Amino acid sequence: MFIKIIVKLPKTKEMVMKKKVLVPLATAFEEIEAVSIIDVLRRAEIEVIVASLNAGMLVKGANGISIQADVALADVDVSTLDMVVLPGGWGGTHALAEDATMQNILREMDKKGKNIGAICAAPFALNAAGVLKEKYTCYPSVEEEIQKDGYMGDAQMVVEDKNVMTSRGPATALCFALAIVKKLCGEEQYAALKAGLLATYCDEK
Amino acid sequence: MFIKIIVKLPKTKEMVMKKKVLVPLATAFEEIEAVSIIDVLRRAEIEVIVASLNAGMLVKGANGISIQADVALADVDVSTLDMVVLPGGWGGTHALAEDATMQNILREMDKKGKNIGAICAAPFALNAAGVLKEKYTCYPSVEEEIQKDGYMGDAQMVVEDKNVMTSRGPATALCFALAIVKKLCGEEQYAALKAGLLATYCDEK
Repeated sequence: MFIKIIVKLPKTKEMVMKKKVLVPLATAFEEIEAVSIIDVLRRAEIEVIVASLNAGMLVKGANGISIQADVALADVDVSTLDMVVLPGGWGGTHALAEDATMQNILREMDKKGKNIGAICAAPFALNAAGVLKEKYTCYPSVEEEIQKDGYMGDAQMVVEDKNVMTSRGPATALCFALAIVKKLCGEEQYAALKAGLLATYCDEK
Repeated sequence: MFIKIIVKLPKTKEMVMKKKVLVPLATAFEEIEAVSIIDVLRRAEIEVIVASLNAGMLVKGANGISIQADVALADVDVSTLDMVVLPGGWGGTHALAEDATMQNILREMDKKGKNIGAICAAPFALNAAGVLKEKYTCYPSVEEEIQKDGYMGDAQMVVEDKNVMTSRGPATALCFALAIVKKLCGEEQYAALKAGLLATYCDEK
């Protein structure tokens, strides 16, 4: 006699393929921007890999706040990433623009048409890699260093052109992170998180 | 013959008495709130002391972001402080409400009429210490745990009553930090920083 046992596994969050986003940190990154992106994306159940460009895992921001990274940038498996998002801060941005590993990751992601994001000064690092698209925004005056047409100024908090999303500075970081959630996880997740964060101003200029 | 030498010392930033603010971190603090407060206050040249409630200096937030504290809370010289500001997050808030050192610091500051601030869930920890004033705000539903009249809801991003400033959640943290700058450093510093952070929405609801 056979007893047929059917085991029906519950559908857990782990079973749904999690999106994976890389946030690289270099010394003198802008802390509000980095933390807003990591925090909001993790609230959306996105796997965020915080990677250090330095030898050590503790990375010091522009305002003296040190954050612990998960992994060294060189050890990140780029093929598994859905998106790379760069926080701003001039010091950190210059490091991101000059680091060969970082620049190669950006080019590899762009070649595959995968999503790329940058805020504040960091669109400069995208431009250095040749992956910035025509329309973009950044921290006011950084566009002079990028010297490109298509700078949208403060017309919107977040500018999207093809696979590249850009934003302006510390005060737009939370809305930028929410726009990334909308892009990767859809409108419903975006609306729920926006309400939970009390981000009533994100649709505005 | 006498040669009179008059040495006129240049007026440096160090010579102006810096304001000193304590930001305590307990495990499961809300990262956007803590970092927005520390970052913005430091931009205003306020000395921010980030203190750990734990044995270790690396404190893990509610969304898995670990931040390095400067000092253990027990080692802070309370007499030199101009203000204490508590970030939210339920886990962190409960720890702040249950820690005897923290609760004593709040009572000592309040007794001297010194400034106290709290955001999101953290007004609960002020209430536990008996220092919350009549009018306040907090993260929606936390007022049910505080059970006090005077909850102002979303009427303003920041509510001030006597020496106590309160705010609502992650999306109001940057404006809360700017309001603290206005309180401690004046209107001019506030306006300059607000513009620099691109925080156009802070005067709004």
